[in-house]
Order: sequence, then structure tokens, then C-alpha cells
Amino acid sequence: MAQGQVDPKNIPDDGLTTRQRRQLPITAVHTGHGKGKSTAAFGMALRAWNQGLDIGVFQFVKSAKWRVGEESVFKRLGELHDETGEGGAVQWHKMGEGWSWSRKKGTEEDHARDAAEGWEEIKRRLAEKEHDFYVLDEFTYPIKWGWVDVDDVAETLANRPGRQHVVITGRDADPKLIEVADLVTEMVKHKHPMDAGRKGQKGIEW
Amino acid sequence: MAQGQVDPKNIPDDGLTTRQRRQLPITAVHTGHGKGKSTAAFGMALRAWNQGLDIGVFQFVKSAKWRVGEESVFKRLGELHDETGEGGAVQWHKMGEGWSWSRKKGTEEDHARDAAEGWEEIKRRLAEKEHDFYVLDEFTYPIKWGWVDVDDVAETLANRPGRQHVVITGRDADPKLIEVADLVTEMVKHKHPMDAGRKGQKGIEW
Repeated sequence: MAQGQVDPKNIPDDGLTTRQRRQLPITAVHTGHGKGKSTAAFGMALRAWNQGLDIGVFQFVKSAKWRVGEESVFKRLGELHDETGEGGAVQWHKMGEGWSWSRKKGTEEDHARDAAEGWEEIKRRLAEKEHDFYVLDEFTYPIKWGWVDVDDVAETLANRPGRQHVVITGRDADPKLIEVADLVTEMVKHKHPMDAGRKGQKGIEW
Repeated sequence: MAQGQVDPKNIPDDGLTTRQRRQLPITAVHTGHGKGKSTAAFGMALRAWNQGLDIGVFQFVKSAKWRVGEESVFKRLGELHDETGEGGAVQWHKMGEGWSWSRKKGTEEDHARDAAEGWEEIKRRLAEKEHDFYVLDEFTYPIKWGWVDVDDVAETLANRPGRQHVVITGRDADPKLIEVADLVTEMVKHKHPMDAGRKGQKGIEW
């Protein structure tokens, strides 16, 4: 069966029409120890941008070096939208920058507070339907570390209003997050150049 | 150990300096039955574009509906490059379009010939170092179907000149392709909304 076709034997008894089912928001989780979790999320955001969806990216772990390429291109696409109306609007937020809290570097307590406040901000945005497509990049980690309550996340995602898509990335996704997701992909590492002592390089890793 | 750092115990005895090792071209394979293989490849291409690399995308299977979003954005990025010098140049080729052969629709023989000619064209480009970053989208299938010789592919990739990165996507990658790759990621499907009878939707699937 070709991708995108639905097996008629497998149509759910949920009382929805195909059209209504098409309108359902997607919750996707990209997990596993392989590469491509965030990269695929940004690839999805690219498609969403092209369809005119409003994009909100939220980075939960300081590894900015590894995302500068995506950030640069998405900010450029956001400018294009503002200038010409092409695609969708783009906002790109990093923990500890740009929101209301002040950030001192370094202590774990600061990071935990940043993550918790970041999640509160996202909850507020979901309630207000501020974006159409959210990337919560590396959001599995603050959940894993207990900085953000997974029950609160699962409940918020399950009950969010409207048609807001959410993609969450990171290793070791909590089973409760998996449970609430529609689409879970595990990226499994089979071979990686860094295993052979090769270093990250421009244009590939960032 | 943070991503991108090299364990000093694991530095290969290949006589290369770190700088030389950084300059090595990457051969990546995204395989498996899960989502995100092509999406992650296009996400990598986005980073490469941002670093000014010349991008060549080659689609080997007619499923254009599912890539129109990426094609549209990458063509726009290519225009931006041509107009303002930002990022890298972009070419986007589909089998049976744009190259020298004429295409009649439909027969398997036509598709086999298109794929074989497409691969010959890519070999020519690799020999001439025409691009810096190649996406060979769904290239595992013509190999699997015997339309393109996997030994020829492996040898060509292993011996390509210069510093040309190649990313190959598709299910069921041939072991000889895995062998020649530096980076192999398997996308494993755990949950997919289409399993529950949901249909592909705008902004998510295309």
C-alpha cells in the first residue's frame, strides 16, 4: 500500500469523516540515540512553513552550536514571510533568551527553572493557539531530569485546543509522552563517523 | 561526553590531522521503515545550504506529492542564492524530468532506464565535482529492484574525488551501501497516525 493511503479495513470507528481526520493536530515524537531527530523535525517545519503555518521553535537544551544553521535559515524564512507574505511566520526561542525571565549562567537550579518557565510559556501559547506548528527541541531531557512534570505535559498536549501540531525531540522519551503521541519514530544509530574519531564539520553538523 | 567531542582514546590511527579529518566527505544512509528518512536528509541539506554548499537533489521515485514542500522551499533558497549570494546554489532533479532523456510514462522498463540514466548522470557530476552536497532521495529502491548496480554505486562513492557529501535515503538499504557509508541511521516506526486510519495532511505530509 502506498504511503498516505488508508487501508479501508483499518478506518477507525471514531465517527469522524476523512476530512475531519485530516484536520486533527499531530503530536510527533522523534526519539532514540541515532542522528536525525531534530533534523527531521526541522524538515517537517520546513514543509509546514511552505504551507503558510505559523512556526514556533523552542530549544530546551543549550547546544546552540549544533542548530545555528537551522536557526539562520528559519529566521531568514520568517523574514521572507514578513517581507513578501510567502510561507508562515517564524519564531525561534532558546531557553533563557528572549522570554521574560533573566538568566544567570550555570547552576542546575537555573536550568531547571528556565525549563519549567519555558514549558509554562508554551502552555500559555498552546492555550492561546499562538502557533500552528511547534518544535519542542530536546524537550525529553527536562522531562527526564524532572524539571518539567510529564503528567502536565501529557495532559496539556492531549487537551490542547484547535489544530496545533507539536513535534518533540530527544533521547529516552518518557512512556507517557509516547502514549500521548500519534507518531513516534525512533532513530537508531548503526554507524557514525564520530565513532571513528572523525569530528563534526561545517555544513554537516551545524 | 558531549556530542561532537572525540574520545582521545578513540582517535583513529589513519595519519590524518583533526583538520584533515574534518574535511572528509560524508556518506550518509537513512534507512528503515519509519518516517523521517528524507525529511532528515532535507534538514541536513538546509544546514549545508546555510554554509554556502552547492546542493543537488535527485529524486529517484515518483512520489512528488510528498516532496512538493521541500522542493518549493529549496527552489526558493536557490533563488535567494542567485539573487543575493546567500547560502548555496540549489538544483532539484526528478527522474524523467530535466535531464537529456525523453520520458514516456508508465512501463517498468521506462522507469528502470530512467533510474539507470539518472545514476549515470550523478556519476558524471561526482567525477566533475559539480555539487558539494547530494541528496539521492529513495535511491535504495532502484538498487533493490536491480535497475542500478550496487557494486558500481559502492565503488563510485568510495572513490569519488574532492569533498562531496552524499546522503541516500530509502528502505532496505543494500548491505554494500551500508558498508561504504560513514553514517547509517535506521528510522524505526513505533506509532504512526495512518495506522489509526488518519490521512496525510497539508503542512505535515507534504
